[in-house]
Amino acid sequence: MENWEDLQKALIEFRNLRDWEQFHNPKDLALALSIEAAELNELFLWKSAEEADKEKIKEELADVFAYAILLAEKYDLNINQIVMEKIKKNSEKYPIDKAKGSAKKYNEL
Amino acid sequence: MENWEDLQKALIEFRNLRDWEQFHNPKDLALALSIEAAELNELFLWKSAEEADKEKIKEELADVFAYAILLAEKYDLNINQIVMEKIKKNSEKYPIDKAKGSAKKYNEL
Amino acid sequence: MENWEDLQKALIEFRNLRDWEQFHNPKDLALALSIEAAELNELFLWKSAEEADKEKIKEELADVFAYAILLAEKYDLNINQIVMEKIKKNSEKYPIDKAKGSAKKYNEL
Amino acid sequence: MENWEDLQKALIEFRNLRDWEQFHNPKDLALALSIEAAELNELFLWKSAEEADKEKIKEELADVFAYAILLAEKYDLNINQIVMEKIKKNSEKYPIDKAKGSAKKYNEL
Repeated sequence: MENWEDLQKALIEFRNLRDWEQFHNPKDLALALSIEAAELNELFLWKSAEEADKEKIKEELADVFAYAILLAEKYDLNINQIVMEKIKKNSEKYPIDKAKGSAKKYNEL
Repeated sequence: MENWEDLQKALIEFRNLRDWEQFHNPKDLALALSIEAAELNELFLWKSAEEADKEKIKEELADVFAYAILLAEKYDLNINQIVMEKIKKNSEKYPIDKAKGSAKKYNEL
Repeated sequence: MENWEDLQKALIEFRNLRDWEQFHNPKDLALALSIEAAELNELFLWKSAEEADKEKIKEELADVFAYAILLAEKYDLNINQIVMEKIKKNSEKYPIDKAKGSAKKYNEL
Repeated sequence: MENWEDLQKALIEFRNLRDWEQFHNPKDLALALSIEAAELNELFLWKSAEEADKEKIKEELADVFAYAILLAEKYDLNINQIVMEKIKKNSEKYPIDKAKGSAKKYNEL
């Protein structure tokens, strides 16, 4: 089982059993996503990357995925499709010969 | 194609062709993720959820997924497994009879 | 001029001249604050602290202060008072003998 | 007491007594700031602005100010000066006749 659809179904079932759809408007879902992203970042605060706790990272990253998947569902987006399109777009914004080995933003290349 | 492994491969190929792995330590990947989450949130700023631009949401959400997937790869995490485990954990933290219809946190239920 | 009341007045005048109070509910002000915080963080992304651009930091930090000051005004909070109270509280949560030289959270000390 | 300098002194004394300057590089301070901003936002999650808890807002906003003030100190920035400069800059980006009553970004006006 390595596909998004199973996860989406499980998340929606979890949500509906608790009657939480009423709270899950896209604005609050996006907010929830960024709060989970901050909790993930807190695991690295005042530390080097190596010192962070992998078990906790697993949990916070799972929360990030959960809200991102629920948000995708709200807009009926196919996750693989939108990410593949973005990779294609970024391939043009960051041509290999210019971007190779550089951390600059595309508008500074 | 609804398999996140395909996405992971495409993202890593994109990264490696640009020699960007040197920048992609987990601390900065988590930071990048939260910056993309903020860009997603900006699409809802000063607005109701309905007024947000779906095309832009698609793009920012794709960025969120991209960094989350790359971070999962860093720790060799199976996305379906970690999200399913989190759902199970949250099912215990938010039992249906207590959590139904409530937006309270588990420690306030 | 090192008084935050002067800033608060200037920010409110700027806002009122543009008739923006209608958008500035506390929920969106808090959201704006976190978006500006993310823009500040972006200046450090994929970099060491030393490589960040001081001029841009100045600008993003100014935005953070602007929204924080406007939010304080919404709740009629005295900034010096709330920060001094928080320092006092944290002094108890982080007693010097336990917290000295440690980056741990108070509940892990 | 309504000035930044008293707060800055108190915060630095608190920090130095705990020997925490070693952790307070600007990159982590900016990260801490955005984490506190997220905790502030969490008080509004799944709620209308009116439902948020003012006491908790006071505390999280105090944390935001604390890190913002410490960051300003790192770069030797005068808070009132940088915010006044930003207001001036934004006055040009958002001329009253164009921006009045509009929540659009300057590049969409």
